[in-house]
Amino acid sequence: MQHHAERFVVRTPGRGTQDITARVQDAVAHAGVTDGLCNVFVHHTSASLILCENADPQVRRDLEAFAARLVPDGDALFEHTDEGPDDMPAHVRTILTQSSLNIPVERGQASLGTWQGIYLWEHRTAAHQRRVTVSVVGS
Amino acid sequence: MQHHAERFVVRTPGRGTQDITARVQDAVAHAGVTDGLCNVFVHHTSASLILCENADPQVRRDLEAFAARLVPDGDALFEHTDEGPDDMPAHVRTILTQSSLNIPVERGQASLGTWQGIYLWEHRTAAHQRRVTVSVVGS
Amino acid sequence: MQHHAERFVVRTPGRGTQDITARVQDAVAHAGVTDGLCNVFVHHTSASLILCENADPQVRRDLEAFAARLVPDGDALFEHTDEGPDDMPAHVRTILTQSSLNIPVERGQASLGTWQGIYLWEHRTAAHQRRVTVSVVGS
Repeated sequence: MQHHAERFVVRTPGRGTQDITARVQDAVAHAGVTDGLCNVFVHHTSASLILCENADPQVRRDLEAFAARLVPDGDALFEHTDEGPDDMPAHVRTILTQSSLNIPVERGQASLGTWQGIYLWEHRTAAHQRRVTVSVVGS
Repeated sequence: MQHHAERFVVRTPGRGTQDITARVQDAVAHAGVTDGLCNVFVHHTSASLILCENADPQVRRDLEAFAARLVPDGDALFEHTDEGPDDMPAHVRTILTQSSLNIPVERGQASLGTWQGIYLWEHRTAAHQRRVTVSVVGS
Repeated sequence: MQHHAERFVVRTPGRGTQDITARVQDAVAHAGVTDGLCNVFVHHTSASLILCENADPQVRRDLEAFAARLVPDGDALFEHTDEGPDDMPAHVRTILTQSSLNIPVERGQASLGTWQGIYLWEHRTAAHQRRVTVSVVGS
């Protein structure tokens, strides 16, 4: 059994999803582990991770529309507004989704389903740099 | 330390929850690990996993009613409709819940609370076969 | 590679968030692991775990207000009401958030982002005792 971790930074142009599947698979490959588990972790509270359908980009546009309706920017409910009308919604969206994903490793790869892609979801409207760590445990 | 993984398929009759606690506990038992961690992963983007109250089946019916109200089938917000009015809601429901569960292993078993059951939640209205992997790391 | 687990109990005064970051970091330190992964697990179905912004307490008050609006106590939708008007909402809130958090361990600590705190979120209005297990795998 061994453990391997590596980090990368995702530069986001603002709100929306970024496909990081290939970067995660690269990190898993570097671990040199055939079977085990991998963890993908984002070190922020206004960006999150999702496993989402990877075939039709409209799925992620519809997801964005749903999130915008569920947690509207500038909602009068929110009193934490010093950092902008999109900041508190970004925290709520993060908590309703994932800060980490945990995926089996088989044959040296994260064993995703056919339609599962790994996306970093930036919830702030401004561009950000988001730190991600991929950890692999296995043999 | 060792790693063990096994897969099974859950045949769902359509939308609703399936108790997979016993199947997960069987896989954990097969691992022969006394203490460690287990990961339960579903390889799909329109079915998910939840830890839910296991005593009163009404809890899961109420949960289903809540999800149906929060993410209505056929919602005019959604443009990804080629695969049916329940497809985009199924993706959203999956993202709002879990694709994997991570549970401590103690005394050779997933150490669930008294009222915690492990459920696969089918979000599509049609019957499906859902692949699940249970991984165990420990000693 | 080694595995270490320890448990603690969080006494909650009723609905709201409790910062458990220091208790988790203590458990990680006790593991004596430099690099690896930690899992924080709550053994209940009406309390959950979140990684949330740790600087402005208003963020968590706004989060509470959002949850109360999204899943109202006493909602006529719910039929599971024997345990009180806040019980079914507590189950839904738990399922929409996390029963476990998985965080990389680096240099002997859970490698949280600058603004990430670990909170136990009590969803019942009455005081409870909540069991939490912290597991660490690494070397």
